[in-house]
Amino acid sequence: MQTPFFRPGGRGPLQLRPLTLAPNFVQTAEGSVLVSFGNTRVLTNATIEQGVPGWLRNSGRGWVTAEYAMLPRSTVTRSPRESEKGKIGGRTHEIQRLIGRSLRSVVDMHALGERTVILDCDVIQADGGTRTAAITGAAVALGIALNALVKAGTLKQSPMKQLVAATSVGIVAGTPLLDLCYEEDSQAEVDMNVVMTENGGLVETQATAEREAFSRAQLNEMIDMAEAGLKEIFAAQRAVLQTS
Amino acid sequence: MQTPFFRPGGRGPLQLRPLTLAPNFVQTAEGSVLVSFGNTRVLTNATIEQGVPGWLRNSGRGWVTAEYAMLPRSTVTRSPRESEKGKIGGRTHEIQRLIGRSLRSVVDMHALGERTVILDCDVIQADGGTRTAAITGAAVALGIALNALVKAGTLKQSPMKQLVAATSVGIVAGTPLLDLCYEEDSQAEVDMNVVMTENGGLVETQATAEREAFSRAQLNEMIDMAEAGLKEIFAAQRAVLQTS
Amino acid sequence: MQTPFFRPGGRGPLQLRPLTLAPNFVQTAEGSVLVSFGNTRVLTNATIEQGVPGWLRNSGRGWVTAEYAMLPRSTVTRSPRESEKGKIGGRTHEIQRLIGRSLRSVVDMHALGERTVILDCDVIQADGGTRTAAITGAAVALGIALNALVKAGTLKQSPMKQLVAATSVGIVAGTPLLDLCYEEDSQAEVDMNVVMTENGGLVETQATAEREAFSRAQLNEMIDMAEAGLKEIFAAQRAVLQTS
Amino acid sequence: MQTPFFRPGGRGPLQLRPLTLAPNFVQTAEGSVLVSFGNTRVLTNATIEQGVPGWLRNSGRGWVTAEYAMLPRSTVTRSPRESEKGKIGGRTHEIQRLIGRSLRSVVDMHALGERTVILDCDVIQADGGTRTAAITGAAVALGIALNALVKAGTLKQSPMKQLVAATSVGIVAGTPLLDLCYEEDSQAEVDMNVVMTENGGLVETQATAEREAFSRAQLNEMIDMAEAGLKEIFAAQRAVLQTS
Amino acid sequence: MQTPFFRPGGRGPLQLRPLTLAPNFVQTAEGSVLVSFGNTRVLTNATIEQGVPGWLRNSGRGWVTAEYAMLPRSTVTRSPRESEKGKIGGRTHEIQRLIGRSLRSVVDMHALGERTVILDCDVIQADGGTRTAAITGAAVALGIALNALVKAGTLKQSPMKQLVAATSVGIVAGTPLLDLCYEEDSQAEVDMNVVMTENGGLVETQATAEREAFSRAQLNEMIDMAEAGLKEIFAAQRAVLQTS
Amino acid sequence: MQTPFFRPGGRGPLQLRPLTLAPNFVQTAEGSVLVSFGNTRVLTNATIEQGVPGWLRNSGRGWVTAEYAMLPRSTVTRSPRESEKGKIGGRTHEIQRLIGRSLRSVVDMHALGERTVILDCDVIQADGGTRTAAITGAAVALGIALNALVKAGTLKQSPMKQLVAATSVGIVAGTPLLDLCYEEDSQAEVDMNVVMTENGGLVETQATAEREAFSRAQLNEMIDMAEAGLKEIFAAQRAVLQTS
Repeated sequence: MQTPFFRPGGRGPLQLRPLTLAPNFVQTAEGSVLVSFGNTRVLTNATIEQGVPGWLRNSGRGWVTAEYAMLPRSTVTRSPRESEKGKIGGRTHEIQRLIGRSLRSVVDMHALGERTVILDCDVIQADGGTRTAAITGAAVALGIALNALVKAGTLKQSPMKQLVAATSVGIVAGTPLLDLCYEEDSQAEVDMNVVMTENGGLVETQATAEREAFSRAQLNEMIDMAEAGLKEIFAAQRAVLQTS
Repeated sequence: MQTPFFRPGGRGPLQLRPLTLAPNFVQTAEGSVLVSFGNTRVLTNATIEQGVPGWLRNSGRGWVTAEYAMLPRSTVTRSPRESEKGKIGGRTHEIQRLIGRSLRSVVDMHALGERTVILDCDVIQADGGTRTAAITGAAVALGIALNALVKAGTLKQSPMKQLVAATSVGIVAGTPLLDLCYEEDSQAEVDMNVVMTENGGLVETQATAEREAFSRAQLNEMIDMAEAGLKEIFAAQRAVLQTS
Repeated sequence: MQTPFFRPGGRGPLQLRPLTLAPNFVQTAEGSVLVSFGNTRVLTNATIEQGVPGWLRNSGRGWVTAEYAMLPRSTVTRSPRESEKGKIGGRTHEIQRLIGRSLRSVVDMHALGERTVILDCDVIQADGGTRTAAITGAAVALGIALNALVKAGTLKQSPMKQLVAATSVGIVAGTPLLDLCYEEDSQAEVDMNVVMTENGGLVETQATAEREAFSRAQLNEMIDMAEAGLKEIFAAQRAVLQTS
Repeated sequence: MQTPFFRPGGRGPLQLRPLTLAPNFVQTAEGSVLVSFGNTRVLTNATIEQGVPGWLRNSGRGWVTAEYAMLPRSTVTRSPRESEKGKIGGRTHEIQRLIGRSLRSVVDMHALGERTVILDCDVIQADGGTRTAAITGAAVALGIALNALVKAGTLKQSPMKQLVAATSVGIVAGTPLLDLCYEEDSQAEVDMNVVMTENGGLVETQATAEREAFSRAQLNEMIDMAEAGLKEIFAAQRAVLQTS
Repeated sequence: MQTPFFRPGGRGPLQLRPLTLAPNFVQTAEGSVLVSFGNTRVLTNATIEQGVPGWLRNSGRGWVTAEYAMLPRSTVTRSPRESEKGKIGGRTHEIQRLIGRSLRSVVDMHALGERTVILDCDVIQADGGTRTAAITGAAVALGIALNALVKAGTLKQSPMKQLVAATSVGIVAGTPLLDLCYEEDSQAEVDMNVVMTENGGLVETQATAEREAFSRAQLNEMIDMAEAGLKEIFAAQRAVLQTS
Repeated sequence: MQTPFFRPGGRGPLQLRPLTLAPNFVQTAEGSVLVSFGNTRVLTNATIEQGVPGWLRNSGRGWVTAEYAMLPRSTVTRSPRESEKGKIGGRTHEIQRLIGRSLRSVVDMHALGERTVILDCDVIQADGGTRTAAITGAAVALGIALNALVKAGTLKQSPMKQLVAATSVGIVAGTPLLDLCYEEDSQAEVDMNVVMTENGGLVETQATAEREAFSRAQLNEMIDMAEAGLKEIFAAQRAVLQTS
């Protein structure tokens, strides 16, 4: 029998960390949100540029992509800059591809037209769940940037069809937990990310056994927990978008 | 209503492509398998080296990792070499991390001891499903290489606890299909990879909406199909391992 | 005769932009300050690591160095990441060398012992004067980090002998101005950075003619203005260091 | 006096290793040959692309070039990938330039027109003589690809004027030997590559003293041996080209 | 009290090292000067190319830029090539930006028209002051190259409005010295570079405290010394330009 | 019938260009020679470092290697620096490997002991034959550097067993010519480099058909011409080594 696991801060298994979405953290970007899940803080900035990558030229369709980086001291032990190392690591690539796919799933590319939206997600402080926080924050930054195009009369309505958000779930000491912090994540047997649209459609589910393989029953329980958490997150996103 | 989709070659929705696992394709490697799923062919070679990466030194534990590359003409249109471009792309990084995690899930690292196994997966010809073929072939190459250590008396028994294999499933024109070829994959609404151990545990499930979000019901149906296909694949792996 | 130049926001020629030094912006670093001069905001984090670069090994002396980067959307038009480009540009190199030299000038390297302090200066929002803001903020982050070593009993007293700070001056439309914002800087005939220690010693003076050569008289007037501004900046630095 | 040298497998000094040229090993390429000289196996694939490098644009002339790489486990000890190292080594550069020059010597560039042919030579298993095997196989892959253009009616006749092939010769323990395997090559005093056209013209001769300088007489003897071996190789090439 | 410092070779504090400017050292360049200050020797070659960087296109204005490198054995201990390391270091970037800015200050970019001048400064032998020697030599190479355009009738008059030159000053053992050699530079408390135009305008002044902060009085004394030395240097430049 | 070819400067087919070997061009290196063949000028500097590459450690044997680079304006049209491009091209790699092999052929590695000699060959001005000039000059620089070790008492006698030198030959308009300049080289049908030791042993012969294949008779004639030229070159090398 496993020792029961007590969550740092006494959180319940189904409880999200305190979530804030601070809009307009930076004035230089078309859309900007500093998202925090507990001690995890990610600055997400949206840039809208004219034009699209080569393979979309003259298609009438737009493109949405993302870049992700961690500041060297976002972590308790300093990590070297990828610019110093001269190349981007595998983990970074994997994460920025996930963020890009997630956001593309809720944008009508024909309505966007031949524009490229870049979501820069820079981790200011890391305590687990940076990729899901980045998706959650970037969705709001994207919404703000596209709404601004509507206000400016450039577009008739926002090409963002609905919200998208993400959260993590995991199994720690045999117990499924929502929204893992770093300490929990580093001990998890299974780690899962769920990306969902506001109307409940699944965009991406990635479950990974870190120590032990998992069962279909465990997979289903984890998705149930993620869905519950994501409803709270969508509410927070909507609140910010309506007022900014 | 969607136009029904006819699979190339007239395959049924639940039918795998012809699978072969040719052992000892290369004599220079400790374990070598040329795996084919239809026209997809991947050469998987296992190397066993003394020593482990720095963070495992003096831990008594081993390490298993993978590298993945496509030959320039594995594809119908030539793709430039990553060595010429001077850097490895995001897709490659994502795939080799997935292969490494999958194989580590079935190896007892203490039994392996301070050795590193590298699985080189080089795509000779690509027609969809190269990453799942690579996992499937590499598991056998790994088994051969570890069995050789047992035969040589270096290890008492193989540190490979059981087999691991992978397959893809997807939804094309509303229909779930097993083991997508390239033509199917490029039209899929949802694309999923399932990595499973021989005893039925899930190691990795990654489902991605390429066009439309998917439902819980669809997710479950896809995993059911993958499990069925994987049983056939495990049988093929076992057959090769027993005779080589 | 030149058209007189009116400063954005109606600032006087000798007036600094509003200056804030927010300590502990990040909890993960040994010392952390978010410094703002008007709309220019730089996050400066101090890391203290054991050991020194090879050429100082067994010398009993420490080392202080800096890294500088701009977030892609710190600027009104997005700038590509240096990690994506795979190399660090000349401007970045020049700035991080300047920051490193400036901070080394006020640290007693024997008292520091064989430790390396890295000052990460990441520009969150850029509106001119990012390198001088970085020096000013990093000096406080360094002070906080070294004071913590004293509080922890690791060092008897801080190896930081005094404060160091920096400001810019320039000649715009014939008029010398203190603390240039971006709009002013882009029109300046001469651009100067002055790095000074708290007791009035000069550490670095760099004056560059952008359009027209400048005279000895102009050089002297610019340094006078910088010295006046730096007194205010030292006061702000001291206020933060005493309370954090 | 030197100890006489016995060739592995009991080959005579003038005897080639078993040679096979397997056409269409890959279906994705315009021309594909898996060439084997004993245990040395190289996959050579020809790609024909529209257009030429900048310096040939609007010249009416084509271009033929080659890329060469070794799979990590083509060798008995694994060699790291050049894509992982981020740069291509000197040996690789030297070899791919040699392959390109050799093939260009038998192609009528005006008849080819503004097309580029790329010969990808990937070493599957290495046992000496990979560069000469690559030239020999690539010539056949090139022939197949150009013949296909003729069959398709794109070209009236093949721009390949005649065949080209290559072999190695060396002096081991004082004895000249044809077609060195790795064990022989590593002990050779002199190592020579000869590239010849079907009608007996020399395209490239490179003789290198690895330990001792060599004489004119030795040089001549080595070329004689190479010419004899090349006649057999041309016969094998012709046999494949006529039937594929 | 400090030990008085005796200059190598018995130079007086205000005495320049022997200066030579050998024109046409290389015949392949539009302008070529081998400049020597004592043992410091820098080959400076000017190239004039049609066209300008993107941001100047269709502006009617030209551009002047510089590249700087040290031969590996220009130093007493060999330094690795930056081409081998695959990237250019911070010091090199800093120096080539300084050379470029200095030369641009004396060129009328409208008169130059849409041409780019590249000044290659390659250090043959280094004994301190390579960057100031490079500016001094490159100004003459630039003058020669532009005069040739006038002689050829391409331009009516040289776009070079006046000469520019540079020298170093420093404080060693408390004493200000002109034109530091390496031995002096490595012991200097303060190191300063002054770039001046022929008519006495300052283009760039960079003073850096290497050990101790410096005072306004010391700064002024160093600039006075530099101005005196630069008068001699301008005379040498003029002598060469009039005869070549 | 081909138009007869007149050599620039009226040279006879068997005539070398004026050859000079200026020793001690740089004082900073252990051995330094500026070698000129007509307008081709290469600075060759020898560095002797303690220690050897990893694979020779504790073998008691030394190593000799070379690096080769062209200054950007050594050519009539400026070539970009390889340090700027961030990688070394194939031609450079090929040449520096050739230079290294050539010099290793005349050094007794046991007598050298665990030292590494690096020959830096930097092309100041290029007019054909830079690689053969580099070998010729580097051999003298190497001799000077090793003789200095003998004079210093570090070695009892020089580990250089004899001289080595190189020259080019080619066939231009059907006529074999010695020591091609750039204009000749660019029109040559066949291009050959011959590296020979002082006692007449061949170290490397590389003959390449640039347009037409060549015959055995032509190959022999070219080597005859090279041998004649090399005798003159050895005399020049000996003259310098005896007096420096």
